[in-house]
Amino acid sequence: MKKFINKPENLTNELLEGLALAYNDKIKLDDGKLVVRAFPKSQDKVAVISMGGSGHEPAISGFVGEGLLDASVVGDIFAAPNAMSVLAALRKFKRDAGILLVVLNHAGDVMSANMALKLAEREGIKVKKILVAEDISAGIDAPKSERRGLAGCIPLMKVAGAVAETGASLEEVFSVAEKFNGRMATLAVAMSGCTHPQTGLPITELPADEMEIGMGQHGEGGGGRSKILSADDTAKIMFESLSKAVDLKFGDSAFLMLNGSGATTPMELAIVYRAAVKLAENIGAKIEFGIVDEILTVQEMAGFQMVLCVLDDDSRKYLKARSNAPYWTCLG
Amino acid sequence: MKKFINKPENLTNELLEGLALAYNDKIKLDDGKLVVRAFPKSQDKVAVISMGGSGHEPAISGFVGEGLLDASVVGDIFAAPNAMSVLAALRKFKRDAGILLVVLNHAGDVMSANMALKLAEREGIKVKKILVAEDISAGIDAPKSERRGLAGCIPLMKVAGAVAETGASLEEVFSVAEKFNGRMATLAVAMSGCTHPQTGLPITELPADEMEIGMGQHGEGGGGRSKILSADDTAKIMFESLSKAVDLKFGDSAFLMLNGSGATTPMELAIVYRAAVKLAENIGAKIEFGIVDEILTVQEMAGFQMVLCVLDDDSRKYLKARSNAPYWTCLG
Repeated sequence: MKKFINKPENLTNELLEGLALAYNDKIKLDDGKLVVRAFPKSQDKVAVISMGGSGHEPAISGFVGEGLLDASVVGDIFAAPNAMSVLAALRKFKRDAGILLVVLNHAGDVMSANMALKLAEREGIKVKKILVAEDISAGIDAPKSERRGLAGCIPLMKVAGAVAETGASLEEVFSVAEKFNGRMATLAVAMSGCTHPQTGLPITELPADEMEIGMGQHGEGGGGRSKILSADDTAKIMFESLSKAVDLKFGDSAFLMLNGSGATTPMELAIVYRAAVKLAENIGAKIEFGIVDEILTVQEMAGFQMVLCVLDDDSRKYLKARSNAPYWTCLG
Repeated sequence: MKKFINKPENLTNELLEGLALAYNDKIKLDDGKLVVRAFPKSQDKVAVISMGGSGHEPAISGFVGEGLLDASVVGDIFAAPNAMSVLAALRKFKRDAGILLVVLNHAGDVMSANMALKLAEREGIKVKKILVAEDISAGIDAPKSERRGLAGCIPLMKVAGAVAETGASLEEVFSVAEKFNGRMATLAVAMSGCTHPQTGLPITELPADEMEIGMGQHGEGGGGRSKILSADDTAKIMFESLSKAVDLKFGDSAFLMLNGSGATTPMELAIVYRAAVKLAENIGAKIEFGIVDEILTVQEMAGFQMVLCVLDDDSRKYLKARSNAPYWTCLG
C-alpha cells in the first residue's frame, strides 16, 4: 500500500495525536478519540459538536476551533463512533445553554447519534440534533432519508459555530443552521477509487476511461457513470443539477465550495470553479465567494464534491466570521 | 488522463482565473499570468514578489495576500516564467522602498530572474533577490548551487511578507528572510510519480513496492530509493537528516511543515508529524508549532516534503503574524 502509516490498528489514534500536536494552540485530544478546543473560552455558549469516522482528514476534527466546532467525536477509519463515545462527549459538554449535535446522514452515525441522544435526554442533557443530508445524487426530490451527508457539513458547522459564538440560544443556533441546511446541496464526482488504509483493499474501482457523478465518500454508487468529461462539461452537469436543487435564480448570490477528494488538486478545482462562475452568470446569478481546497477527503481518490449554497445575510455573515480552526479558510 | 481539465494549452490561464474568482476579495489576475493582491494597501512598503511554474497549486499564487506576497509571476505547467514577465512585474511594483524577489533554485527560474534583474537595475528599479535552495537531498554539505528550492519557500515568503508589512526597509526584509533561509532545510519523499497535465505522460515512475527519499518536485531523482517504509521509519530518516542540516540541539524550538505532494492526505502527514515530534523530544528539542497540509503539490504524486526550521524570536513572530492569503494557515 502506497501510504505512510504504521500499524493499521493504531491509525486513528496516531493521526489524531499528530493533528493535536501540530495545532496544539487550537485543539487537543481528550480521552483518546474526542478532539476539543485547546483553550475553550466560555461554558455559557451553546456547544456545537459533530461526529464521524476518520480517514477523511482534515474533516471533521480539523474544524474544531473558536467560531466553529467545540468537539469532534471520532470513529475508526470510515466507521461511525459508537453511541457511548457520543454520549461521553454530550456529558462532557452538558450545560444550560445546550448542545447542537451535527450528524451526517450515514446509517452508522445516525444510529449512534440517536441512541446517545435518547440516553442523554434521560440524564437531563439539553441537546438538539441537526441532520446533514444534502447529497442530491439520489435525485433532487429524493426524501431526506435517502440522501447522504457530504462535505456541505463543514460550512454548515461553520455557520452553526459562528452563531453559537455570539451567545445565541440553542433554538437560534439550530434555526440559522437549519435554514442554511435547506439552502445548500452537494454533488460528488469520482475518477478513481481509493485504498482502505487499514485493509489495503480498494473501496471501489473505476475503469481507466470512466468517471462517476454522484459517488459517495465511501465509494457508494451514484448512478452517473460516463466516459471522462472535460472540466467544463463536468461542471455543467453538476452545477445545473445543484442550481435546480437549491433553486438558484436570477439576482441570487451563492457560496461555492469545491472539495478535493484526495488526488485532485486545487489546480483542477480552480478550473472547475471558473466554469461554475460562468454557468451562474448565464442565469444572472453570482458566485460571491467560495473555497477551493481539500476539506473532506476520501484517501487518494481522484474527484471532488461541489457544494452550492444560496446566500442570505445570515449565511454570508456567519461564513465570513472569524474562526481559528486549523483547516478553515479565512473568508473575512 | 484522470484529471478535470479542458484544453491543455489553456490550463494555466484557466486555473489562475479560477483561483482569482474564488478568492476575489484577496487576489486578482493582472495581465494574464501575474497574480496580485485584490486591494493593495500601501505603495510605501517593500514589495515581496515570487515566481515559478504552475501545476503546484496552491503554491505559489495562493500565497499572495496581506502579510505575504504582493505578487506571483506564473509560468506554464512546471515551467519558469520568462524574463520579460518577471521584468514586467518588477516594473509594475517599482517603488522607493524596493522589491524583494524570492527565487526558487531551479535553472529556468534562476535564468529568468537574473536576466530580469539585470534589465530592471538598468531602469533604476531597486530590487534584491533571495535564493531559496533548502533541499538537502544532495547532502547537507552540498553547495547552494546544487540544492533545489522546495516548499520551504512558502514559510520563507511568509516571514519576508510579514516583515515587509511592518514598513521595514529592503535591507531589513532581506536580512530577516535570509536568516530564516539559513535556519531551515527540506527533504522530500515520493511513493509514486504523477501525470504531466498537459502531455498526459508520467513525469517519473516508481515500482509498486518502492519509495524514494529526496525526489524533487518535478520527479528529479533523489538517490534515496528503498522498499516502502513505515511512517515512523520514514520520519526517522528524514528528520535525522534535517536535524543535522539545521543543527537542531537540546533546548531548541522548531517549526515543522509537512507538505503533501498530492495523493498523500493530512491523515498520513499527521502520523508523520507525531513521529517527528517524538524524534525531536529524544534530543531534548521541541516542535513548537507547524503546518500539516497541501502547500506545494506535484499533481497527484503520493509523497510529502518535510520542512524543518529552528525558531528564533523573529521567525516565530513573523510566521504567526496575520495574513489573509487564501491558502496560508492562520498560526496566530
